[in-house]
Amino acid sequence: MAGSVGILGATSYTGRELIRLISLHREIDIKFLSSVSHSGKGITEVFPELLTICDMELVSPEDALKTRVSAVFSCLPHAVSAGYIKSFADKGIKVVDLSADFRLKDVEVYEKWYNKKHPCPELIKERVYGLPEINRERIAEADIIANPGCFPTGILLPLIPVLRKKSGSVKNIISDSKTGVSGAGRTLKQVSHYVEANESISGYSIGRKHRHTPEIEQEISIACGDKREIVFSPHLTPMERGILSTIYLETDLSAQECLDITKERYKQEPFIRVRDLNDLPSTSYVRHTNLCDFSFTESGRQGMVICVSAIDNLLRGASSQALQNMNIMMQIPEMEGLTL
Amino acid sequence: MAGSVGILGATSYTGRELIRLISLHREIDIKFLSSVSHSGKGITEVFPELLTICDMELVSPEDALKTRVSAVFSCLPHAVSAGYIKSFADKGIKVVDLSADFRLKDVEVYEKWYNKKHPCPELIKERVYGLPEINRERIAEADIIANPGCFPTGILLPLIPVLRKKSGSVKNIISDSKTGVSGAGRTLKQVSHYVEANESISGYSIGRKHRHTPEIEQEISIACGDKREIVFSPHLTPMERGILSTIYLETDLSAQECLDITKERYKQEPFIRVRDLNDLPSTSYVRHTNLCDFSFTESGRQGMVICVSAIDNLLRGASSQALQNMNIMMQIPEMEGLTL
Amino acid sequence: MAGSVGILGATSYTGRELIRLISLHREIDIKFLSSVSHSGKGITEVFPELLTICDMELVSPEDALKTRVSAVFSCLPHAVSAGYIKSFADKGIKVVDLSADFRLKDVEVYEKWYNKKHPCPELIKERVYGLPEINRERIAEADIIANPGCFPTGILLPLIPVLRKKSGSVKNIISDSKTGVSGAGRTLKQVSHYVEANESISGYSIGRKHRHTPEIEQEISIACGDKREIVFSPHLTPMERGILSTIYLETDLSAQECLDITKERYKQEPFIRVRDLNDLPSTSYVRHTNLCDFSFTESGRQGMVICVSAIDNLLRGASSQALQNMNIMMQIPEMEGLTL
Amino acid sequence: MAGSVGILGATSYTGRELIRLISLHREIDIKFLSSVSHSGKGITEVFPELLTICDMELVSPEDALKTRVSAVFSCLPHAVSAGYIKSFADKGIKVVDLSADFRLKDVEVYEKWYNKKHPCPELIKERVYGLPEINRERIAEADIIANPGCFPTGILLPLIPVLRKKSGSVKNIISDSKTGVSGAGRTLKQVSHYVEANESISGYSIGRKHRHTPEIEQEISIACGDKREIVFSPHLTPMERGILSTIYLETDLSAQECLDITKERYKQEPFIRVRDLNDLPSTSYVRHTNLCDFSFTESGRQGMVICVSAIDNLLRGASSQALQNMNIMMQIPEMEGLTL
Repeated sequence: MAGSVGILGATSYTGRELIRLISLHREIDIKFLSSVSHSGKGITEVFPELLTICDMELVSPEDALKTRVSAVFSCLPHAVSAGYIKSFADKGIKVVDLSADFRLKDVEVYEKWYNKKHPCPELIKERVYGLPEINRERIAEADIIANPGCFPTGILLPLIPVLRKKSGSVKNIISDSKTGVSGAGRTLKQVSHYVEANESISGYSIGRKHRHTPEIEQEISIACGDKREIVFSPHLTPMERGILSTIYLETDLSAQECLDITKERYKQEPFIRVRDLNDLPSTSYVRHTNLCDFSFTESGRQGMVICVSAIDNLLRGASSQALQNMNIMMQIPEMEGLTL
Repeated sequence: MAGSVGILGATSYTGRELIRLISLHREIDIKFLSSVSHSGKGITEVFPELLTICDMELVSPEDALKTRVSAVFSCLPHAVSAGYIKSFADKGIKVVDLSADFRLKDVEVYEKWYNKKHPCPELIKERVYGLPEINRERIAEADIIANPGCFPTGILLPLIPVLRKKSGSVKNIISDSKTGVSGAGRTLKQVSHYVEANESISGYSIGRKHRHTPEIEQEISIACGDKREIVFSPHLTPMERGILSTIYLETDLSAQECLDITKERYKQEPFIRVRDLNDLPSTSYVRHTNLCDFSFTESGRQGMVICVSAIDNLLRGASSQALQNMNIMMQIPEMEGLTL
Repeated sequence: MAGSVGILGATSYTGRELIRLISLHREIDIKFLSSVSHSGKGITEVFPELLTICDMELVSPEDALKTRVSAVFSCLPHAVSAGYIKSFADKGIKVVDLSADFRLKDVEVYEKWYNKKHPCPELIKERVYGLPEINRERIAEADIIANPGCFPTGILLPLIPVLRKKSGSVKNIISDSKTGVSGAGRTLKQVSHYVEANESISGYSIGRKHRHTPEIEQEISIACGDKREIVFSPHLTPMERGILSTIYLETDLSAQECLDITKERYKQEPFIRVRDLNDLPSTSYVRHTNLCDFSFTESGRQGMVICVSAIDNLLRGASSQALQNMNIMMQIPEMEGLTL
Repeated sequence: MAGSVGILGATSYTGRELIRLISLHREIDIKFLSSVSHSGKGITEVFPELLTICDMELVSPEDALKTRVSAVFSCLPHAVSAGYIKSFADKGIKVVDLSADFRLKDVEVYEKWYNKKHPCPELIKERVYGLPEINRERIAEADIIANPGCFPTGILLPLIPVLRKKSGSVKNIISDSKTGVSGAGRTLKQVSHYVEANESISGYSIGRKHRHTPEIEQEISIACGDKREIVFSPHLTPMERGILSTIYLETDLSAQECLDITKERYKQEPFIRVRDLNDLPSTSYVRHTNLCDFSFTESGRQGMVICVSAIDNLLRGASSQALQNMNIMMQIPEMEGLTL
């Protein structure tokens, strides 16, 4: 075993996915699962499907802190996560944070969009934004990884290579994104009630209101070298998992040129499948995998190209990407535990 | 009874919806149901849910022609529909055509997009485009109604008042539209297989490839008084029915101005619910109704407003709109049979 | 208008269905909608789909009591409902109670299964069990109707005529029943979370644990004239609405004989469709209607016949059956407001 | 590599699942994929989600026969499968047949239920019924494995240990089984159309009409040592995959006794999870795995116990069980390629 890890907030969907993934991982084992509300219970009381796969008892975050581990995944909510992470980081323990707490480099932007005081702004400068194919080298040396948001992951992977290479050729960007209901988390909410979510599609936080907006803008601005904005429209779709983003690019590049740039950039990447021109993916292509599939097509309007990208929001948009980051940080072969 | 009608192509989903609606209509009764492939069978053999609601036998289109009716609905496929319609029209029988055959005014555009010879181009000039709230007076005097496509209905109802009043203020338009699987019809296709459609969202005919594109462009061009184009991206969504269109308008109008124009225009219309600013509808709001719900919101980008509209694709996007048109043509109170 | 009614607990799914139904009813109008948790809000804040259909404000149950109405529907939870009903009944106002409070005739059985003290046991003897086709005459004269549970409705309608006529010929009964998720109500629960309910079927309360067991047993015992039991196994199915019950009858009757008895019994009933032998219904046949569809088939084992029955749990299993009962109580034509 | 295999009928859902599984298997690789209707195409044209996972070209069954392989999986339809299998068997190539052709030992029973002449009755006596935990030793020495039907797998695994040990204590058996739509295969049928299958549950082939009936009866009769029958009622459920069987056992055993027998029998089996008393599984517990979960509970009626079992119909009910059988036949560690 290369190392042992703990999972904070293990009773979330992202926690459950991490447990499933790590139970098959040959270099990592789990030393603790923590939960504020369920500590003392067995994890199989919360997730009965884990019987024989993981039979650990949930501990409190306080007890978790006393357990010796090489690294920690945090699946805690934002504004809560960073506080616990600080405690682990102070002991020299590496962390992959699945919350939003370290995604934004500018603490003022964070506090405005998340409407909370950041628990440890001094740590932000040390964190690396964990988009593995983009920041692999920096991830390998980081102590704190900000695991990207689910929507940003699917939008940034196709865009960054194009923007890096041809930032001057791309103007306005719109992403019309569609997510499955697991994106709203396991906490009970009316929008996640089966009867509300089933047989219905709706937009939400449309019009510069969703918290992933500043995160996407931060990363496309870095890629371009100047400040960029996006019109980002998320939609709730009656399915369990998956995100499809239909991205409208105002550009003088052709769809073929965008495709060539990204195919070249990702040709060695096992988890990114740049499909042929016009072969636009469906979310079913990537379900239960760490893959990101995308392609480009002409819009029919002069000066506009359309990209469609698909990921599994719980895996590539959260847990499997977190594990990919952990593999990189811990010098474990990057595909270990992710080969489906 | 104000009149008796027949339904051509009664074994389609749109045919079934018409049967259900008319079975509750107090001024119209059904004189025949026709089907090429099922003639001789009872309609309840095809749709067992219609037991006691409608127990008629399906006849061939040839036998249908011999039946005396005041008007006919055609649910036949495009390129087939117009031929039969001609036979009825020649006998002075009014027709609402749910196929695409009479939607496009320019026969060349039709033949290019539908890749078929039009069976009776000479009738096109007589038809009226059946968007009831827009063309009510002309519908009342028409003999042939081209019932609008499902996507165009949901896109045009919010746009036309704005374009008519402020065509100079609106430039580019994108509609990112999401439809339930019934939009693909009852004919067996791999994309409509439960296992393919379930738990998956995907784009199709993206990039000026979908046949509703020229129909939308024809009507927005009429509204503007000059030639307009649209970028139209349909998506297949894992639900039975419903269409949500997220429409991106490049305009110097504000969302509030767009809302004011449409609220004023539709204030007397029982089937159009212009919701308050930012109160964007879900497809569940309009399921099983003839309603079109929409509203506007700011995009967050200077010069762009977003409209979200929702309809039931089988009803307002097909059968109930067809019945609304029929009511108007037959001088029956417009809401009869549609009050849910 | 024959009368005006109020709805207690209007923000439940059964409340919403009642509002929709009554909005189309020609003899009844709504005078109040009450809610403990949402009083003061508009009903469209809770159910935005009701815009223009019903724009009333929710009042507290206390204010409701001061409103003058002819009759009341209670969609309140059990143990809460009966207390409010008493206040209305004391003023001579007729009530249809959709909760379980008046379903069981024996208050001890009620208190054992529901684990609550009954708020007004003295009223139980006055109530009538509201299965309209079975107890129509008594309903017409009742002041309090106990609207049947959803599972009992679908199970009792096919069984009662057989048991009344041939109680000696029927021995053991098993009902393996499958319900949509709306059966679990609108209150937030983990089992109703989209991600838990979707793509999964499971049994619950199997083995004489579900509260509808004593209700079914009470009514089959009345029909037989002696004490009977049932093995009742409910299952949660990934769909919004509908109940299918597959009922295994140990009997020396043939399927045809069971069918003949029920066809004869229900031949005048517009809302019960006894289908042909072996023509077993699907829940889709009865969705959004007040219908109960059923048929019988041979099991292949000597001495066992199978019945399959289907209802919409929110309508025939709750709200539309409640309205049918109200129509009967208020001497309104029984089908009014229910004809879909 | 321990060996190389081919897949006949690779464009079925069971074929696709096999391809996915074997792509991760460390001891087996795929040498051919065959298809009658799609030969010449790439497999990714049929299943675009397999891009980079398996990029082989589909060959005709005739060309497949010329390819050198150690073993073959047949996903061909019944009555077609056995003919091809004979050709491979004659060359000494081991076969796992996922069709029904070798499941029934009595060719007359086969020909009656499947209404076809058996292509090679002489081979039936050589085949072994591939329920791995039951027939492991015989599978290890077999040349032809009849992979069990999906329903029989989920029903037999809990029943056989009880029947073997206590056949005299068990009388009548009913299995009320619920399957996802993938059970109906990838071929286009009206029942698998999204709009028909969604939001609807229905029984089919109820009453000794489903072809899995004689298969279940054959195996329970073997377990008991005398002829036994079952009342078997399959239902189509609106979900992609999974089978839940609710099994009613007339027995003088208690639920605890049934549980003890099966817990003891399966205590070493990694793919069978006998859950605690009353902890009845949901199909979601076993989705995308080779697991069979089950438990027992009291029915509440003297002399009747209820078992609920869950499997993934495409994996444990077909492809992963086929691979488990193949592993055993080829002396590969039994869990290889199945560890999720």
